[in-house]
Amino acid sequence: MKVEGRNSIYELLKTDKEIDKVLVDKAQNDEGSKRLLGNIRSRKIKIQYVDKRLLDKESVSKRHQGFIAITSDYKYFDLEDIIDGVKGKDGFILVLCEITDPHNLGSIIRVAECAGIDGIVIGKDRCAQVNDTVMRVSEGALNHVKVARVTNVNGAIDRLKDKGYWIYGAEADGKNIYSEDFKGNVCLVIGGEDTGVKKLTREKCDEIVSIPMYGKVNSLNASVACGIAVFEAMRKRKNL
Amino acid sequence: MKVEGRNSIYELLKTDKEIDKVLVDKAQNDEGSKRLLGNIRSRKIKIQYVDKRLLDKESVSKRHQGFIAITSDYKYFDLEDIIDGVKGKDGFILVLCEITDPHNLGSIIRVAECAGIDGIVIGKDRCAQVNDTVMRVSEGALNHVKVARVTNVNGAIDRLKDKGYWIYGAEADGKNIYSEDFKGNVCLVIGGEDTGVKKLTREKCDEIVSIPMYGKVNSLNASVACGIAVFEAMRKRKNL
Repeated sequence: MKVEGRNSIYELLKTDKEIDKVLVDKAQNDEGSKRLLGNIRSRKIKIQYVDKRLLDKESVSKRHQGFIAITSDYKYFDLEDIIDGVKGKDGFILVLCEITDPHNLGSIIRVAECAGIDGIVIGKDRCAQVNDTVMRVSEGALNHVKVARVTNVNGAIDRLKDKGYWIYGAEADGKNIYSEDFKGNVCLVIGGEDTGVKKLTREKCDEIVSIPMYGKVNSLNASVACGIAVFEAMRKRKNL
Repeated sequence: MKVEGRNSIYELLKTDKEIDKVLVDKAQNDEGSKRLLGNIRSRKIKIQYVDKRLLDKESVSKRHQGFIAITSDYKYFDLEDIIDGVKGKDGFILVLCEITDPHNLGSIIRVAECAGIDGIVIGKDRCAQVNDTVMRVSEGALNHVKVARVTNVNGAIDRLKDKGYWIYGAEADGKNIYSEDFKGNVCLVIGGEDTGVKKLTREKCDEIVSIPMYGKVNSLNASVACGIAVFEAMRKRKNL
């Protein structure tokens, strides 16, 4: 997997992820690049100086800023890793129900990181998977959020219920989201761009919650809707 | 300007926008396409039946679903149109400070539409302008939100101040957004993806507000941050 651009690589370096090597534009000589190079060297990571043309060719984002790190492929967590990671506090877990656009997945990972969420569960099928685009769009947030991939999203929800999680589904026709308290162990299910929360999954939810809308079209982007719902839940959890 | 896909064209038909013609895949014959065709015909809009290959070629989104409407170019509103449109109620206006990504602009227009915002102000320079991508990403919301383009964003803010608007800037190091009441005539300034709210603009703000963050990276996508801030303001304005 490629991690491109200076900020994303700074974030990568903060983690204990395995970095195979970093491709660096040999022509650059600005203060920012020297600082980042020093940082990479101090971690004893292999640096390969190359022509800018090669970076341009390797770059998916076309915004590599002279640096592309090559990491081992994303290693998904298990649902149990996420559950076990919640210790001495109440858990807050996101379940994504058929989010298919990698840009939305990357943006949702940013939301989860900013909200300090304990983990994200995605399905193996009919879901965007973690790839270079997701990594890039997440702007490094992927390094700090656990993403678990499961064969059966509904099975994962059952497991969370067993562990005492209260399951909220975010959908258009539910209770006003502002009337819920979101305290305790909470799981929020986000529907896919086209499908919403699927019927079977919906039936597993303890409560369906909606963001009140005041327009005519009333269709938010999936990651924006997720951001509003997650931060409203955090507001309640933090008594703000 | 091209409006692509069935839902976007349904939304377009709800407005009084001028539609030059609609390109329609001549091979399609499903119930959904017949319903939309009937709708287009009832508005006496010119229909041009074409080969799917031509639609594929004309399509920017590559998700035309057999329908591409050609409209007159987007006609920006004046700031005064937005101000005058606020009658017998308190106004809520967004000012975008150097949002450069058309996807973010489209997504912010969706946010504004869903929140029932009175208008959006963008700058002529260093800002994404309304184009086919913005139209497509807005999923038809652009037809229901006034977007004004101004030469000088700071001048627009001065004008809003003259009209009694309270200017909030959304930035990382401000007051907790949940402590503000957002009542009355309100303008919310959203910073650019890379630049944030520029210094001169920031100095014009009556208050800087921030979304509390709980992670390590703490970087939200601009349209997601805008969604969270706008819906928090709406919650307060609606006493939810």
